[in-house]
Amino acid sequence: MTSGGVDAAERGANMAKLKITETVLRDAHQSLIATRMSMDEMYDILPAMDEVGFYSAEVWGGATFDACIRFLDEDPWERLRIIRKRMPNTKLQMLYRGQNMLGYRHYADDLVEYFVQKSVANGIDILRIFDALNDIRNLEASIKATKKEGAHLQAAISYTTSPVHNLEYFVKYAKDLENAGADSICIKDMAGLINPTTAPELVKALKETVKIPVQLHTHYTSGLASMACYKAVEAGCDVIDTAMSPLALGTSHPATESMVAAFKGTPYDTGLDLKKLDVVRAHFAKLREKYLANGLLSPKVMGVDANTLLYQVPGGMLSNLVSQLKQAGKEDQFEDVLKEIPNVRKDSGYPPLVTPTSQIVGTQAVFNVIMGERYKMVTKEFKGLVRGEYGRTPAPIDPEFRKKIIGDDKPIDCRPADLLEPEVEKMKAELPAKYNEQEEDVLTWAMFPQVAPKFFESRRQKKYGIDGEHLDAENGVHPV
Amino acid sequence: MTSGGVDAAERGANMAKLKITETVLRDAHQSLIATRMSMDEMYDILPAMDEVGFYSAEVWGGATFDACIRFLDEDPWERLRIIRKRMPNTKLQMLYRGQNMLGYRHYADDLVEYFVQKSVANGIDILRIFDALNDIRNLEASIKATKKEGAHLQAAISYTTSPVHNLEYFVKYAKDLENAGADSICIKDMAGLINPTTAPELVKALKETVKIPVQLHTHYTSGLASMACYKAVEAGCDVIDTAMSPLALGTSHPATESMVAAFKGTPYDTGLDLKKLDVVRAHFAKLREKYLANGLLSPKVMGVDANTLLYQVPGGMLSNLVSQLKQAGKEDQFEDVLKEIPNVRKDSGYPPLVTPTSQIVGTQAVFNVIMGERYKMVTKEFKGLVRGEYGRTPAPIDPEFRKKIIGDDKPIDCRPADLLEPEVEKMKAELPAKYNEQEEDVLTWAMFPQVAPKFFESRRQKKYGIDGEHLDAENGVHPV
Ligand SMILES: [Co+2]
Ligand SMILES: [Co+2]
Repeated sequence: MTSGGVDAAERGANMAKLKITETVLRDAHQSLIATRMSMDEMYDILPAMDEVGFYSAEVWGGATFDACIRFLDEDPWERLRIIRKRMPNTKLQMLYRGQNMLGYRHYADDLVEYFVQKSVANGIDILRIFDALNDIRNLEASIKATKKEGAHLQAAISYTTSPVHNLEYFVKYAKDLENAGADSICIKDMAGLINPTTAPELVKALKETVKIPVQLHTHYTSGLASMACYKAVEAGCDVIDTAMSPLALGTSHPATESMVAAFKGTPYDTGLDLKKLDVVRAHFAKLREKYLANGLLSPKVMGVDANTLLYQVPGGMLSNLVSQLKQAGKEDQFEDVLKEIPNVRKDSGYPPLVTPTSQIVGTQAVFNVIMGERYKMVTKEFKGLVRGEYGRTPAPIDPEFRKKIIGDDKPIDCRPADLLEPEVEKMKAELPAKYNEQEEDVLTWAMFPQVAPKFFESRRQKKYGIDGEHLDAENGVHPV
Repeated sequence: MTSGGVDAAERGANMAKLKITETVLRDAHQSLIATRMSMDEMYDILPAMDEVGFYSAEVWGGATFDACIRFLDEDPWERLRIIRKRMPNTKLQMLYRGQNMLGYRHYADDLVEYFVQKSVANGIDILRIFDALNDIRNLEASIKATKKEGAHLQAAISYTTSPVHNLEYFVKYAKDLENAGADSICIKDMAGLINPTTAPELVKALKETVKIPVQLHTHYTSGLASMACYKAVEAGCDVIDTAMSPLALGTSHPATESMVAAFKGTPYDTGLDLKKLDVVRAHFAKLREKYLANGLLSPKVMGVDANTLLYQVPGGMLSNLVSQLKQAGKEDQFEDVLKEIPNVRKDSGYPPLVTPTSQIVGTQAVFNVIMGERYKMVTKEFKGLVRGEYGRTPAPIDPEFRKKIIGDDKPIDCRPADLLEPEVEKMKAELPAKYNEQEEDVLTWAMFPQVAPKFFESRRQKKYGIDGEHLDAENGVHPV
């Protein structure tokens, strides 16, 4: 069901030794400018990007969906269809949070599956799915749906450091993912924690265990990303994520042009043409200037975040802690909070520090310190994490500790989504008829019930005029 | 003659496998903010920097001398003495352009030697000397003087790419430098051309040839620097140049904290403490914000310069070309000029593209293109380069070509400085007595005859009050 007369299997087929996933249309701008790149800003350059010969382009999913309807007044489905049409020769990739889809709660299986179906139908070739806790049960529905649609299932491992996150842990999870049907494995290092020693070690261990390709996704936050990628590739990593240089480095990824140049003439040569990349670069260089001028891009996110190096926690989490402590007038206890974080992580089964667990752990550590007593006050979200609402934590939680935190509440040890009733039909019934322009709208509605109505209304008015109020949306007749 | 009761030999003595030269006080701010960091801005942090245990800190030379007197109204000699006093445990390093000293012409040997003597006397432990053309004869006087003063002589190779700049060429030059007395060799890659393949190749070849330590100095311009350093260290590189993260990346160097973290736990562990570095980082982070706010630091220099990757010429040279072409209304001939550069380089014996040769070659290429005929118009500087005024070019120049360019002018094939009369006594006689506050002033006067008087006058007025006009400077009596 892809357009342009090109089969997904034919896309990106080349003999290059190292493959590149270009992220400038998704993670790069999500990381640097809060996902605010609009279709207008990408439209013109898509054919030139298609010319480059990237293995794939990450263009959708993650926060793009939310940003489209919340801030950009843009139909995310239409964005996907346009990109598909204008990049017929490049595999299109999305980031999908498994049972969380692209929203902020666990959704029922039928909705998760319906979303996958529609993503593929509208042009996605590769779904990168991940779970914050690496609980494979939270990926089951997505895996099943992706396989059913015949798309490439890239299963991502949320990378973190902790006593339980050793090679054995990651290798076992990767093997489980391969057995579950993954077509490739992605090491997803959101925080830029992986380094030029651990990256090749992990890649090597994975390559010895799984038969499918291994991809590395890491952020430049701590200034280690290009070195980690280089060493990972030498250790056998098949694909790396990079971003066109104007939106690279800082909280984004290694620069595409630099990595292409770095491997030129080596056994890992990407085969990509720096001249073709330069055409693409020129487009995004203008956008970079625009974002700097309008303040969307701050030089603050472009430097090296040395705190990540020092404390092994993501930079964004630290700034949250600082502002929470400031609000409480307890800035002087920052060091204590930093020391408390490993304790809270240990108590809660060593969750990777990624949304939403980074906020949950960080906030609880702040409370533990400023209350002067550990777990005297416990957040609702921390209770949820300990209770098992987010899934199985990487290490088991001590039953006594759990009892202390959730009292007589019953812990959840089943797959969280098993507790959810099917919701597609319910959502279809709820979606106001006047907003229903395409089958995909029910998914937008289900994920963003607060934001979707305003977006739908705006779309409706753009289509039918400001007097769309009087329109009979059911039969699409517009009164003159 | 160093202060603080610490011998130069004792400084930086530790068992770390990889050594770090911290550049934030010289090259980092020279590269990012046109060398405008003032003593006021560095003063407070110097003791904390001294605590870190860097192998050395590059703090002087290069453009700092010029910037001090031209823009900062600061005595560069006084700056050096203050840094020396406040960093007694760290080897202090300067960049010295050999026969060019820190100015813009060739100076006589006696002046070159006098400058070295005063640099060491005021606190320099390591002199990094280099010549733009890698003509060792332009380093002879500096080498002799450095050895005489008992300082560490670091001989730098101007790195570039060309058909003659192969491993054999570099290895031979390094051997010559070692034979001439060099205590270490620095690969000086001004433009960020060296990559993760060529850096370790060159390091390995040098390590196999010379017995002295090898250091890598490269700029982040093209986004390759951290990878090149990492691979160079694996190949045996003993020291790398880095910059504290707030003034790293872009046209500067790899971030100190990132490189320290990258090698942590490896056989190349620097042994430096990220917590101590964090204290230093915090200071420069505030300066970074200040420079961004006052416009000294532009986000433009903080990205990846993909043109260097594409054309193998330094980014600064390309922007000069663009503005020259604009002035001539010939922007459309940019590609032609890029194609002409290799021809001009070949004709002129493949000079490295570094100040001043980058400008000389670039401007000539522009003339060749816009005049529609090669060498129809030849600049005075290009004539000088071809005639041998700057020294011996890496490849010999075809005599017929030389004849075409300089006509009947006699080519110079001796050591250029042999044509210069001693000038210390002359300069001493010229220096107005009222400006003579210290022996070093004659060196300031000799290098910057246009700028020095204004600086001296300002210093005098600060010292003796605005009515310093009436002062008898000879005996230092200030009329009340
Ligand atoms: Co990411
Ligand atoms: Co430099």
